[in-house]
Amino acid sequence: MKELAERVSLLGVSPIRKVSALLDQAKCKGEIISFGGGAPSLPPPMELLNELCDLLTKDPISSLRYTGTRGIPELRRAISEDVAKYSGLEYDPEREIIVTDGGTEAIYLALMTLLNPSDEVIILDPTYLGYAEAIKLAGGKPITLSVKVEDGYQPSQENLERLITPRTKAFLLLSPDNPTGRLISREFAENLVECAVKNDFWILSDDIYKHILYEGEHVYVSRFSGARERTVTLCSFSKEASVPGFRIGYALGPAHVIDGIEKVKQYTSLASYTPSMYAMVKFLATEMKEKYLRETVIPLYKKRMEFMGSCLKKYLPEAKTVKPAGAFYYFVDMRSYLSDTNTSDEEFCQRLLREKNVVVIPGSYFGVSGKQHVRMTFVSESEERTEAGIKAISEIL
Amino acid sequence: MKELAERVSLLGVSPIRKVSALLDQAKCKGEIISFGGGAPSLPPPMELLNELCDLLTKDPISSLRYTGTRGIPELRRAISEDVAKYSGLEYDPEREIIVTDGGTEAIYLALMTLLNPSDEVIILDPTYLGYAEAIKLAGGKPITLSVKVEDGYQPSQENLERLITPRTKAFLLLSPDNPTGRLISREFAENLVECAVKNDFWILSDDIYKHILYEGEHVYVSRFSGARERTVTLCSFSKEASVPGFRIGYALGPAHVIDGIEKVKQYTSLASYTPSMYAMVKFLATEMKEKYLRETVIPLYKKRMEFMGSCLKKYLPEAKTVKPAGAFYYFVDMRSYLSDTNTSDEEFCQRLLREKNVVVIPGSYFGVSGKQHVRMTFVSESEERTEAGIKAISEIL
Repeated sequence: MKELAERVSLLGVSPIRKVSALLDQAKCKGEIISFGGGAPSLPPPMELLNELCDLLTKDPISSLRYTGTRGIPELRRAISEDVAKYSGLEYDPEREIIVTDGGTEAIYLALMTLLNPSDEVIILDPTYLGYAEAIKLAGGKPITLSVKVEDGYQPSQENLERLITPRTKAFLLLSPDNPTGRLISREFAENLVECAVKNDFWILSDDIYKHILYEGEHVYVSRFSGARERTVTLCSFSKEASVPGFRIGYALGPAHVIDGIEKVKQYTSLASYTPSMYAMVKFLATEMKEKYLRETVIPLYKKRMEFMGSCLKKYLPEAKTVKPAGAFYYFVDMRSYLSDTNTSDEEFCQRLLREKNVVVIPGSYFGVSGKQHVRMTFVSESEERTEAGIKAISEIL
Repeated sequence: MKELAERVSLLGVSPIRKVSALLDQAKCKGEIISFGGGAPSLPPPMELLNELCDLLTKDPISSLRYTGTRGIPELRRAISEDVAKYSGLEYDPEREIIVTDGGTEAIYLALMTLLNPSDEVIILDPTYLGYAEAIKLAGGKPITLSVKVEDGYQPSQENLERLITPRTKAFLLLSPDNPTGRLISREFAENLVECAVKNDFWILSDDIYKHILYEGEHVYVSRFSGARERTVTLCSFSKEASVPGFRIGYALGPAHVIDGIEKVKQYTSLASYTPSMYAMVKFLATEMKEKYLRETVIPLYKKRMEFMGSCLKKYLPEAKTVKPAGAFYYFVDMRSYLSDTNTSDEEFCQRLLREKNVVVIPGSYFGVSGKQHVRMTFVSESEERTEAGIKAISEIL
């Protein structure tokens, strides 16, 4: 039988798969405490679901029709207004915005639209576990820029400059970050833009967690001089509207890049999910989003973040971490506990699940700099269970 | 600014985009008769939407969660049972089935999983307008096998054999066909399988219209000896459940191919839409599907198909076509009307829209063999409007 495409073997064993396998294994155990997932722990505003159901049952043909590849104009206009409201940046809904199947498709399409074989894309290490493989799938080469807990997981400008070559095609920035919760400094962002202009590369700004913020302000990279025309912004409603299963996100960028993305999307997915688009029009076009984030999402997540922080200090005093400015996670350096016994983060996580029914994600899944670290989601569990889980971790060490 | 990826310019101007532009132009005209679209004209069973809304509002967190990349096990089991019921073929829901974002993603993922650069994929001409570009996007080369109205749009085995080279990696079959409505003959399918075994290539069977059938029986290619292990079957619920906006489909095939598809999908879309999956479990797991197709879909579409056929005979007696065995379309050879004036099918369609407010799709969008043909969707318009539209076509000629 003729072999499969080489790209498939290039992809290796996926860390996404490993995480799912770990979570599946956990589910079979029944009663577990999970700091593992990356999903919101709240339902979306119920008003939104009620209105969507109204539409689906009253006008099923139109709410379930194929839409254009860029998505319905109402949603592109609503996104344009929403982006302008928070960032002051203007994007033309006709030419500079496209709706995607979540943030994942936005990232993939941007990479497919920008990368030629062997083009290099700089990503941080650790970073979101899908980036490196998506870059490879689009024919490119991921180049990693390490960050450390000692620097608050901020990348260094000097180290960035050392990685730039004539093949550097793009820098992929995620802020607030998964797995570290780090908000990029204005200074690094400004220098990054200067560097991109000087060396002529693209900036891909993954803004999925831009509204999941506990302190500081989101840095809109496109606002720096010279950045807008070389930045593609990727976003998703999964986290801000608590609708991961709706698979809806978008990309913003220069018209010719969005044209390219549309061309590619015609053959990867044709169009996004129609009911999600109508639901997101509702979410954006009213006060619903602001109210939901301010009154429901941020207060709960912030309280849980603070609480997990205090438990980490109490039960794991030797663990090093940085208080997350945003997103869902603590990224915890466990070297002071694991180095002596030479235990890998993966072995440790397996043992923790086996002996204590607690799930955390091995840091090495996010890059080599994540060795002997673990990622702990703070949004999912109640305070009581969070304390019990972290106490259990301390007992096993 | 560094250039975009070469693959984007390779894609050329998309026929999908041209069709959308034509339909948008039509919409601006207000009152038009459209034989243009490719969408079902019925709503899905209302029971399905009611149950979905119940689930969404009662359990929003779980019905909107991220699922595994292969899709929820309940849906894969339901697909496995449904496929077995109609075809007698057994597919393991754990290893041989993956849920996709509609048929489009199923096709794309299969191509990405199978094709290396310059691998050749044989498609028919005319055929679905997304195939050639999807093959190019995956790095392959589309090779076309022409079919003609005189042969009932059946491909010839001899012509197929002439196209086979050492680079032939796959044959992509769509039956019932878009744009011609042709059901593949058992004889061709059997010879195709023999040829695939002998020359060691894959068969991609796009079964999207398998239940939209007015006469004859769907040919399940995988049932022929030697076919199952070299066939990837691609399917969608868009047509059979009248839910194109739900963007849900699936791929069936050998476990190692489905493994590869899963790997690729982790980075193209991560997972499909969760609410669509639950809706399709309902559609399959009860008598809903069979009843809906038998009592609602097929009677209406068949009546409209017969009626359009009689109008074509009456008003366009010189046009050549084949009575469709399945799908939504007549593919009409207009050469006897257009050759004299040397009008292209595209010019003709533009003029028809401008002067008569009637939309049909230029046949050349489906391949060079479609020159001076048009595709006419028969499912969308009432009998009265169908007759008025075809009369208008005859008046302009």
